Amino acid sequence: MKEAFDISLVQRGLRLRRSPYFMATQRYGAKAYTVYNHMLLPMNYDDLETEYWKLLQDVTVWDVGVERQVEISGPDGLAFTNMLTPRDLTRCRVGQGKYVVITDEKGGIINDPVLLRLGENHFWLALADSDVLLWAKGVAIHAGLDVEIAEPDVSPMQVQGPRSPEVIRALFGESALNLRYYQFIETDVAGIPVVLTRTGWTGEVGFEIYLRDGRLGDDLWERVMEAGEPFGIAATGPSEIRRIEAGILNYGADMTIQNNPYEVGLDWMIDLDQQADFIGKEALKRIHAQGISQKLVGVEIHGAPIGLLMTTWPVLRDGQQIGRITSAAYSPRLKKNLAFAMVHVAHADLDTELTVLLPETGPRSATIVPRPFVDPDKEIPKG
Amino acid sequence: MKEAFDISLVQRGLRLRRSPYFMATQRYGAKAYTVYNHMLLPMNYDDLETEYWKLLQDVTVWDVGVERQVEISGPDGLAFTNMLTPRDLTRCRVGQGKYVVITDEKGGIINDPVLLRLGENHFWLALADSDVLLWAKGVAIHAGLDVEIAEPDVSPMQVQGPRSPEVIRALFGESALNLRYYQFIETDVAGIPVVLTRTGWTGEVGFEIYLRDGRLGDDLWERVMEAGEPFGIAATGPSEIRRIEAGILNYGADMTIQNNPYEVGLDWMIDLDQQADFIGKEALKRIHAQGISQKLVGVEIHGAPIGLLMTTWPVLRDGQQIGRITSAAYSPRLKKNLAFAMVHVAHADLDTELTVLLPETGPRSATIVPRPFVDPDKEIPKG
Repeated sequence: MKEAFDISLVQRGLRLRRSPYFMATQRYGAKAYTVYNHMLLPMNYDDLETEYWKLLQDVTVWDVGVERQVEISGPDGLAFTNMLTPRDLTRCRVGQGKYVVITDEKGGIINDPVLLRLGENHFWLALADSDVLLWAKGVAIHAGLDVEIAEPDVSPMQVQGPRSPEVIRALFGESALNLRYYQFIETDVAGIPVVLTRTGWTGEVGFEIYLRDGRLGDDLWERVMEAGEPFGIAATGPSEIRRIEAGILNYGADMTIQNNPYEVGLDWMIDLDQQADFIGKEALKRIHAQGISQKLVGVEIHGAPIGLLMTTWPVLRDGQQIGRITSAAYSPRLKKNLAFAMVHVAHADLDTELTVLLPETGPRSATIVPRPFVDPDKEIPKG
Repeated sequence: MKEAFDISLVQRGLRLRRSPYFMATQRYGAKAYTVYNHMLLPMNYDDLETEYWKLLQDVTVWDVGVERQVEISGPDGLAFTNMLTPRDLTRCRVGQGKYVVITDEKGGIINDPVLLRLGENHFWLALADSDVLLWAKGVAIHAGLDVEIAEPDVSPMQVQGPRSPEVIRALFGESALNLRYYQFIETDVAGIPVVLTRTGWTGEVGFEIYLRDGRLGDDLWERVMEAGEPFGIAATGPSEIRRIEAGILNYGADMTIQNNPYEVGLDWMIDLDQQADFIGKEALKRIHAQGISQKLVGVEIHGAPIGLLMTTWPVLRDGQQIGRITSAAYSPRLKKNLAFAMVHVAHADLDTELTVLLPETGPRSATIVPRPFVDPDKEIPKG
């Protein structure tokens, strides 16, 4: 066993839950854990840049058991789930997934899960970090709909990177590679029941394996590692650098319940014309008509590589604060500092010149640029 | 500045929030942080036993800004809040607080906050670790009641220990010492707006100061430290040892949404005879009539001092597993290992002899004993 993180630095007692892969992550030498949905999430096993290149060049596996599921079923399952999100779920076929937002009555974003439609009235929401189980159960109390809402024993892992299809082929056979983006199948790994999805948090090709029996986490983990060994598989944490390059948002940082989908560029998933009266519809109609006051933009911060964003970095224009950085990382292949900033809408145009105040190294010039920073259709050197 | 914890071991980017006292906790040398309500919670500044004795003999201050508030107001504030909890809030006067549970439709415990009644229809819930904001907002969607639900800018700190009244007198004057248990006043510290409560998580005499303006956290912290200096005040984490001695439960460990109040000994706060149809009332009536299948009990684990409880410790009787330990600590003054165990109700009687399987040091004999372990009315040596 490699030298693993002293878990008592983040946990004392049993308040925080562990994923079914926890013992494996300790064996493989996880160096730090954060907390997500009341569970421990391994952040890295090596330095962040090494893990980044591994993801770009080979294949990585992440313990994301923290992506807890909310399961909605019962005769009114479709009607109820459609009430929770601005996306029109009548357009989501069984066997298909969708990236959705869950909105409150003001249009504020409660979560941005991956939704899987397992049956006519049967849905899973694979959650970002907030208790949507409580939200959904609360909404159901007086909704007058016949639904069941529960947290099933389901724990995803992500298998991401250019060689991930080879690992998936070894585990599930050739046909699994026919999955299109956001499709899924219910299947198994040597008898271990799983759902396999063509999804991920990277912009690289990738899959998620949703384990359906928490007792078998260690077994599944080792089978994935064995299948991936010929392809150079490594256990890593989620790559902050790669998800920023891809323009992917991190709930809690780039958007919270204080933000609506228009502010963060998720307009495309709001179906205001659908029949269903989803929660937040009236508020979002109003926002759509009146316009937004702030907007999340891509920013390139000029100069030397930046460190981790751990405190507020104010964004200024002409000496006035007009926003703040919400995520930032240095991209080793672009050799640029990439960031998202929430700025006043009057200062959100492309090519706007800004100043970012780094608390330790002082002011930096910066420019608003398109996001994603990496166009998925353009070839970019990976090493 | 003392050598502080490298926060990048638990946080990367800005997903997790910081309390208004965060910079102070770093200055005072916090050695570890956990995550609670999506925020960083300092766990300790010294070794746990030293902090325990400080709490017993002098006075300690804790950053518990993680105790986020849900604020309920509007014309139907009382009716709505009474719907959330089995306690009859018509018996809670304005200016009074109550320890309450929030229950779901099955009687499962969603949270166990301290409730403050600030006005006829105005309440705060100081939360344990779950998103009650989402629960309450969800319930309100179709409730047909005129309420507003929000998270105000309010961040508590705890001031606990036998010399805490002297610190509170120095800060607020003699009259503040007239507060009875669970009473509160709206007041200020040199113009810093706060609510002062006679509450805490220790079984010692203690207070909480709820800061009402997050920009002034550092100022408040230093004023408390200055007032406490003559009385030997120290910044510490919440004491796991002391709260177990006092029989206080930790949400997420000793009870979860899977448990009802009867199972964990919180029967006394269920008012089934009240007029209000609170959420879970029918389910709790049924459980009350049919009885429970498992129960949380106090356990003394015999033998040498135990280490931290970080994994499952099964509880056996006659070789069969009948439960598991939910919290455990060695009490330096009782010189005993204290624990809570969730056990099958057939094996929950006082004086029952059990075996606890410690993963590293093997089986231990144990006995079911009364909890709290420390009778608040009995004098116990404090050093």
